[in-house]
Amino acid sequence: MFLEKINSPADLKKLEISDLEVLAEEMRAYLLSVLSEHPGHFAPNFGTVELAIALHKVFDTPRDKVIWDIGHQAYPHKLLTGRRDAFPTLRQSDGISGFLSRAESEYDVFGAGHSSTSIAAALGIATARDLINETYKVVAIIGDGGLTGGMAFEALNTAGDFKNDMLVILNDNNMSISATVGAFSKHFHKVTSSPRYNFLRSRVKELLNLMPADAQQIARKIEASLKPGTLFEEFGFRYFGPLDGNDLEALIPVLTGIRSLSGPILLHVVTEKGRGYAPAEEDPVGFYSVSGPFNLKTGKTIKPKPPLPTYTEVFSRTLVELAKRDARVVGVTAAMPGGTGLDKFANAYPSRCFDIGLAEQCAVTFAGGLAAQGMRPVVAIYSTFLQRSYDQVLHDVCIQNLPVIFALDRSGLVGADGPTHHGVFDFAYLRSIPNMVIMAPKDENELQSMVKTALAYEDGPIAFRYPRGAGVGVKIAAEPQALPIGESEILRAGEDVLVIAIGNRVYPALEAAETLTNIGISTAVVNARFVKPLDTATILPLAERIGKVITIEDGVIMGGFGSAVLEALAAAGMANVQVTNLGIPDEFIEHGAVQHLHALYECDADAVVRAAEKMIV
Amino acid sequence: MFLEKINSPADLKKLEISDLEVLAEEMRAYLLSVLSEHPGHFAPNFGTVELAIALHKVFDTPRDKVIWDIGHQAYPHKLLTGRRDAFPTLRQSDGISGFLSRAESEYDVFGAGHSSTSIAAALGIATARDLINETYKVVAIIGDGGLTGGMAFEALNTAGDFKNDMLVILNDNNMSISATVGAFSKHFHKVTSSPRYNFLRSRVKELLNLMPADAQQIARKIEASLKPGTLFEEFGFRYFGPLDGNDLEALIPVLTGIRSLSGPILLHVVTEKGRGYAPAEEDPVGFYSVSGPFNLKTGKTIKPKPPLPTYTEVFSRTLVELAKRDARVVGVTAAMPGGTGLDKFANAYPSRCFDIGLAEQCAVTFAGGLAAQGMRPVVAIYSTFLQRSYDQVLHDVCIQNLPVIFALDRSGLVGADGPTHHGVFDFAYLRSIPNMVIMAPKDENELQSMVKTALAYEDGPIAFRYPRGAGVGVKIAAEPQALPIGESEILRAGEDVLVIAIGNRVYPALEAAETLTNIGISTAVVNARFVKPLDTATILPLAERIGKVITIEDGVIMGGFGSAVLEALAAAGMANVQVTNLGIPDEFIEHGAVQHLHALYECDADAVVRAAEKMIV
Repeated sequence: MFLEKINSPADLKKLEISDLEVLAEEMRAYLLSVLSEHPGHFAPNFGTVELAIALHKVFDTPRDKVIWDIGHQAYPHKLLTGRRDAFPTLRQSDGISGFLSRAESEYDVFGAGHSSTSIAAALGIATARDLINETYKVVAIIGDGGLTGGMAFEALNTAGDFKNDMLVILNDNNMSISATVGAFSKHFHKVTSSPRYNFLRSRVKELLNLMPADAQQIARKIEASLKPGTLFEEFGFRYFGPLDGNDLEALIPVLTGIRSLSGPILLHVVTEKGRGYAPAEEDPVGFYSVSGPFNLKTGKTIKPKPPLPTYTEVFSRTLVELAKRDARVVGVTAAMPGGTGLDKFANAYPSRCFDIGLAEQCAVTFAGGLAAQGMRPVVAIYSTFLQRSYDQVLHDVCIQNLPVIFALDRSGLVGADGPTHHGVFDFAYLRSIPNMVIMAPKDENELQSMVKTALAYEDGPIAFRYPRGAGVGVKIAAEPQALPIGESEILRAGEDVLVIAIGNRVYPALEAAETLTNIGISTAVVNARFVKPLDTATILPLAERIGKVITIEDGVIMGGFGSAVLEALAAAGMANVQVTNLGIPDEFIEHGAVQHLHALYECDADAVVRAAEKMIV
Repeated sequence: MFLEKINSPADLKKLEISDLEVLAEEMRAYLLSVLSEHPGHFAPNFGTVELAIALHKVFDTPRDKVIWDIGHQAYPHKLLTGRRDAFPTLRQSDGISGFLSRAESEYDVFGAGHSSTSIAAALGIATARDLINETYKVVAIIGDGGLTGGMAFEALNTAGDFKNDMLVILNDNNMSISATVGAFSKHFHKVTSSPRYNFLRSRVKELLNLMPADAQQIARKIEASLKPGTLFEEFGFRYFGPLDGNDLEALIPVLTGIRSLSGPILLHVVTEKGRGYAPAEEDPVGFYSVSGPFNLKTGKTIKPKPPLPTYTEVFSRTLVELAKRDARVVGVTAAMPGGTGLDKFANAYPSRCFDIGLAEQCAVTFAGGLAAQGMRPVVAIYSTFLQRSYDQVLHDVCIQNLPVIFALDRSGLVGADGPTHHGVFDFAYLRSIPNMVIMAPKDENELQSMVKTALAYEDGPIAFRYPRGAGVGVKIAAEPQALPIGESEILRAGEDVLVIAIGNRVYPALEAAETLTNIGISTAVVNARFVKPLDTATILPLAERIGKVITIEDGVIMGGFGSAVLEALAAAGMANVQVTNLGIPDEFIEHGAVQHLHALYECDADAVVRAAEKMIV
């Protein structure tokens, strides 16, 4: 057993390639044993085992800086950098993160949970290094998916211009980048990264410089065109590849050779998602992540799917149904057809669904273009990823008041994915944008109504945001009913305290009201439904009469829904109303079970009860 | 005179190329006469005269959709599309916009003020067209600067995949894209866009298909490599160019030829900034925009620069001075060294200033990388453009609590540039992000102190935002003093009303206090200085004692500074305090003089007086 002896990358240095190959198999077995019991990202990590080994073998980490993109491909890196024994605590409260975290390890050079950031971060690090005359190496890893994000191109373009020494490794695991993968031999790569080849190449460059300019240019282009990395050469990178990224005998000598080269280098490696585990090799999309215990032999999950439909499923089903009646309805996703449920829509209406890649900015403005021509685009996106297109929402959609529909999945606390993924900022960043309508449903039946409401609303942009996971189990109406824009619903009358709740905090509010009434505090509950426009016609008179208000939302308090209620009270000149805002406090929330986090951060039924008791003294 | 007869593009159709050349000169003369008296973008518009003429001559606008990027190159387009007579009202209240606006003209197909959006919007429009089987043409124009923005690459990458018929015109006006500009003749372009060439080319393709795969590939790459558009060919576009974009004899036949081609096409045209006006040809950067009357012969501005230093100048000077003492201080700009004043910093410390291009996302994460290695990056950016990097601020800087300094210029209402450029959202979108410190100075001397404060603060990210234009004329201290983090200043005591102001609204608050005191309403004024952390230790006791509070800010009320005050009062359990929030209301604000807009939207001294009188009844 090698793995049990690897406490830091230093322990890799002594091992031969043949030993490292055994280590790779041990790591896969360990990953499999842990991930078959705990949820986590699966297939991407099975592809990067050899890459992580080779990088920590060849480079002097943590002195050399290795920056992984997104982080969900970095489990092997975690196993090699002191987190082997902690690995079974993955994504659990107080356990290790499912992504990269500077706070967790000095080997996690730059945190990441969203994609496409690694090259820009690495360029900053390389620039700092060169400014203060340090000598460490800088390596960024990026997936072929991550490369579809615009900021990756921005960073390639800048790095090719700045010319700092830096290696970008393109981890190409579904061959979307180049159709020529496999057309070149390992031998070629060994040669091109050897000192001798590079000596010769520099001599060729000298000769080229003696030729007339026109001929030089053509000769250079032809030279470049013989390799599949033309795109990167155009950005000023020197390209090596493609290389089998699951082959340590190829990786280690090439990385060793490249390590001593200067300027911006791109190494293109091809890895196999799910490598080494047959069910995942056969279904890398299904095994992109795993959500609980599964049978090791078959790959089938052991615990059956929860019987309750998820919010995503209800959104998906409703959209497919309503789109039957309106050919103008089209779907837009940023590389998340499965996660958002738009895959069903794409199956039903193949010509009406558009996957833009990990390019949320383009997705939103593209939707703006569709809406400008009378289509009804539904941009289905995770709340946290819409942050990437904040300016496009504002500048391309809302300023022009274009009727784009935003379906924000994974809003509020998402649990195990942690601070990079909690969708808790959306109310705050969307509600300050003029023209935007913002809704959140109390349950899956109301989500269905909100899909209908959004499709029926043609006056401007409209968003509805809903949580990750299963609904609450209510009956879903046979036919969804559109809600009047800006209309809340009074769920319970009461005289001592008014709780104004939104989204998935409505049922906890009702539960608290029950408890409070039982102890003699008569509690009214309003389901706000709309963050914007706020139903001031209902809320203000109630607030004035009752005088004590609690707001609760699964989102940040600063600038959020509760803040909107405060503004409305102030605008109405209403002093004498005491308000307590419950929600996510002003800190980044770590990963953990959602219910646990809601309790911990005073955002559940008990917190409402405590707040009410405190206000009634 | 042709120009006076051009009321719509239909009037162009009858004219010969020789007439259109005269028209172009008339348009330049008209642009010059208007812009020598009114401020506006200059050099980019002098470069696009022929392009606008050729597009409206060849294409059937507005049925065909022509989408300009950014919009500051679209004045010639405006002259040709019914806005000739209105042109002298450019950028003035109730006059025509300096950018593109769907509300202004059906010829402005998609609004724009920020860069790099045109290809994504055009792709949405082309997709909508094809879904409903319409047949119009779609043309996007993008500058070589705009192409450095990541979302332009996202859109190229997507458009090359989707394959809708669509023409992207790269308006290359400083030759930053390709060193090979000028190496190919007009003749080449006429040939390559002719039906005959395209027939031959399709025959060649058939022949290529009969060759073995390897040979095919190499032959194709060599074919492609003979043209400078390899980058675009890699993205799946068919490339034509470069072409002299100021030559109607070249442009019109090429556009006519290309008009009938299918699939994604890129036409690369080279235009000359400032074309036809010698002072602008010689100094296109200085003539990027003009700020007032200038002498037509010399190009020198007539009205001398205002004697008061601008906020930008004070920021720039202070940063240069303080950076002398700390070699870790580095500057980062997104293509705006002149506008942000970082040009002075770059002159003083050439190796310590980084221009990332129109790529705000990369700029912020790059700064995160620098900060991770102990540097003190100052990202100087316009408030409105930081919207592009909202997610990078949150995900790459604030989650990791990296000490990046954000200097946000052009915050608040900016005046003539209008809704796409008002920097009114920054308080709202930044303050809900944990770890962020946010300041705004009341005057240029306090700005100097805030630069010092930010550089002295190493615990996490910090931002200061300041307005466009001249300071208020206060004396600037010889040595800037760092402010204690989170400490406000009480400027005036009073018993009836408390005005809590921030940034450039502090002096109007003082003016209002004077007026109010004179009519018997004793008014206290606090300069908040910090939006976050808010100085609750000072504000809360004052608010409780006085009981009537007015907040005022040069930013949106929804989720802004006043909202932070409301939250603090609620969190402290303070009922019985009546609050009026003044600021920018929940609508997009058109262009116009800043003072006029502040008066119109109840965000000035008079508004404070009225609010106070209303509260004291």
